[in-house]
Amino acid sequence: MSQRRYAIIGTGALGGFYGAKLQTAGLDVHFLLHSDYEHVNKYGLIIESKDGDFNLPQVNAYCDVAQMPPCDVVVVALKTTQNHLLPQMLPLVVKDDGVVLVLQNGLSVEEEVAQIVDNASIIGGLCFLCANKLGPGHIRHIEYGKIILGEYIPDYHPAGITNRMREIANDFESAGISIELTDDLLLGRWKKLVWNIPYNGLSVILNAQTDELTTNLHTRTLIEQLMYEVAMVAKSTGRMIPDNFMHAMLDYTVKMTPYRTSMKIDYDAHRPLEVEAIFGKPLRKAQAAGVNLPQISCLYQQLKFLDSRR
Amino acid sequence: MSQRRYAIIGTGALGGFYGAKLQTAGLDVHFLLHSDYEHVNKYGLIIESKDGDFNLPQVNAYCDVAQMPPCDVVVVALKTTQNHLLPQMLPLVVKDDGVVLVLQNGLSVEEEVAQIVDNASIIGGLCFLCANKLGPGHIRHIEYGKIILGEYIPDYHPAGITNRMREIANDFESAGISIELTDDLLLGRWKKLVWNIPYNGLSVILNAQTDELTTNLHTRTLIEQLMYEVAMVAKSTGRMIPDNFMHAMLDYTVKMTPYRTSMKIDYDAHRPLEVEAIFGKPLRKAQAAGVNLPQISCLYQQLKFLDSRR
Repeated sequence: MSQRRYAIIGTGALGGFYGAKLQTAGLDVHFLLHSDYEHVNKYGLIIESKDGDFNLPQVNAYCDVAQMPPCDVVVVALKTTQNHLLPQMLPLVVKDDGVVLVLQNGLSVEEEVAQIVDNASIIGGLCFLCANKLGPGHIRHIEYGKIILGEYIPDYHPAGITNRMREIANDFESAGISIELTDDLLLGRWKKLVWNIPYNGLSVILNAQTDELTTNLHTRTLIEQLMYEVAMVAKSTGRMIPDNFMHAMLDYTVKMTPYRTSMKIDYDAHRPLEVEAIFGKPLRKAQAAGVNLPQISCLYQQLKFLDSRR
Repeated sequence: MSQRRYAIIGTGALGGFYGAKLQTAGLDVHFLLHSDYEHVNKYGLIIESKDGDFNLPQVNAYCDVAQMPPCDVVVVALKTTQNHLLPQMLPLVVKDDGVVLVLQNGLSVEEEVAQIVDNASIIGGLCFLCANKLGPGHIRHIEYGKIILGEYIPDYHPAGITNRMREIANDFESAGISIELTDDLLLGRWKKLVWNIPYNGLSVILNAQTDELTTNLHTRTLIEQLMYEVAMVAKSTGRMIPDNFMHAMLDYTVKMTPYRTSMKIDYDAHRPLEVEAIFGKPLRKAQAAGVNLPQISCLYQQLKFLDSRR
C-alpha cells in the first residue's frame, strides 16, 4: 500500500469522485471543501456510480487549507474559474518534492501552477469523466473516468515517462481508475481541446447534447471546421494532430452515450464558465503565433456574452 | 387619387400593416391570407400603431389567389421561407406591365421573382419596420416603417430612379409611409444585410435583444467582424460599403429602442427561419467569388441546427 498522502483541492463532482475512489483503495486522502464543508464533515460522501455505488461516512474534510497536513500529491480539482485562489492554497499544502496534479480543463493550467510552487513537480491530468454533483457530498458518476497523465516541464517540452507518473498511476489504478501515460502533455492537452472546444462551446450556445450536434449535418460541419482550427494552433506550438484523429473523434462521439458537457453542466447550474481556460488561452496562443481562428473566436465571443449575462 | 390596384401576397405583420395603410389612404387593396382568412374576411384588420391605432372593419380578403382581380402592384410580403408558393401565385394576379414589389429580407429575392414573371417590372423594397402579429388580423406596429425602393434589372445593374418607382412611392407616401429611392438595389440589400446578418443571427442564437448585443464588449466585437465579412462579399459583387457606415450602424443600434429582430420574432413564434435568404445566399455568392466568410458561416450552421430542430 502506497504511503502517499493526497489532498483534494476542490471536492466537486470530479475531485469528490476521484478522491473517494482513492480513499476506498486505502489511501490517505484529505478533502478541501467550501460550501459543502459542514455537510461532508458530518455525513461524508455518497457516490452513485455506474461501476457500483458506495458511501464514505467519514472523510477528512477541511474548509481551510491551513488546517490540512502537508501532502505528497496535491490534486487541483477546482474549476479554472477559481484559480485565483491557488496562490493562497498550494504553498501551504504541498510537501517539498511533492507533486501537484492538475486535473483541470483547458490550456496552460500547469504554467499557472508553476508560477506558484517551485518546490514540487507538476503533473497534468486529462480527465475523461462524466459526473455531476447532485447535492452536498452526493456525486453521480455517469460514464467514463480515464485520466491521461503527463509531466510538465517549462515550455511544455516533452518530458518522457517519469517514475513519479508511474507511482501516481499505480495509486489511481489500485482504486480502479484507468490511467494512460503520455510523454507529451501539451499534445495531450491539444487533443482534448479538439473535442472540448466544439462540444463544450456548442452544447452551451445551442442548448444541445453531443449526439444531436454530431448527427446534424450543419453542426457536424461546424464541429469539423472548429477541430481544424484547433489543429492549426496546435501546429503553431509544434504539435501535429492528424486528420484521422479528428474523424475518429467525430465517429466516436456519435457512438458515445449522449453527453452533457462539463461546460453545459456548469451553465445549467449557473456556475461561471471555463471560457478563458478552454477558449481564451488557445486564442491568445494563436494570436501570438499570428494564426487566425475566426470560428473559435466566434464561439468565444458568444460564450463570453452568455457568461457575463448571469 | 391613384387608380393603381394593390395585391398584398401574405397578410402577416408586414403585409397587413402596409396594406392597411394603403387602404386607409383610399387605394384599392386586395389581401391574400391563409390561416387568418376566415377571421379577417369577417372582422377586417386592427392596427395598433405608435402613429395612431385604426381599424378596417372591411377588407378585400382572399384565401385563393385565383379569386383575386388582376393588380397593378403585387406586393410580395410572404416570408422567404414560403417562396416556393410564388410560381403558382404571381402569374395569376399581376397585370401585364404591372409591378411586383418584393418586400422581403435577404439577397437575390428579386432574381427568384424574375424567373417567375416576365410580363411585369420588379421593384425591391427594403423595409425598416418593427411590427408583429398579435392574433388573426391584429397587428402591432412598434417602431419605424421606412421602405427603400430600388428597381431590379438583370444582374442587379444599377437601374436609376424610374417613373414606376416614383408612382409607387407617391402611393405609399400618401398613406404616411416614409419612402427613400435608390438607384442601386443591390447596394441597398447589402447595406441592410450589414445589420441583418449579425443582429438577426445573434438575437436568435444568444436569445438577446439588439441593445445588449451592442453594449456587451464581446458581442459588439463579433458584430463588427461579421459586418466586415458582409462588406467583403459585397465588394466581390462590386459594391463598396465604407467602414464609417458600419460604425454608424453600431452607434445607431445602441440608441435604437431595444428591438426584437424579425428572425427572433419568427423563432419565438416557432416559425421557420429565413436562414437561406439572409445567410445562405450571401454565403453562396461569396463561395462563387472565392471569398471566405468563416464567422457568417459559423452563424449559418448554428441557425440551421436551431431551425431544423423544431
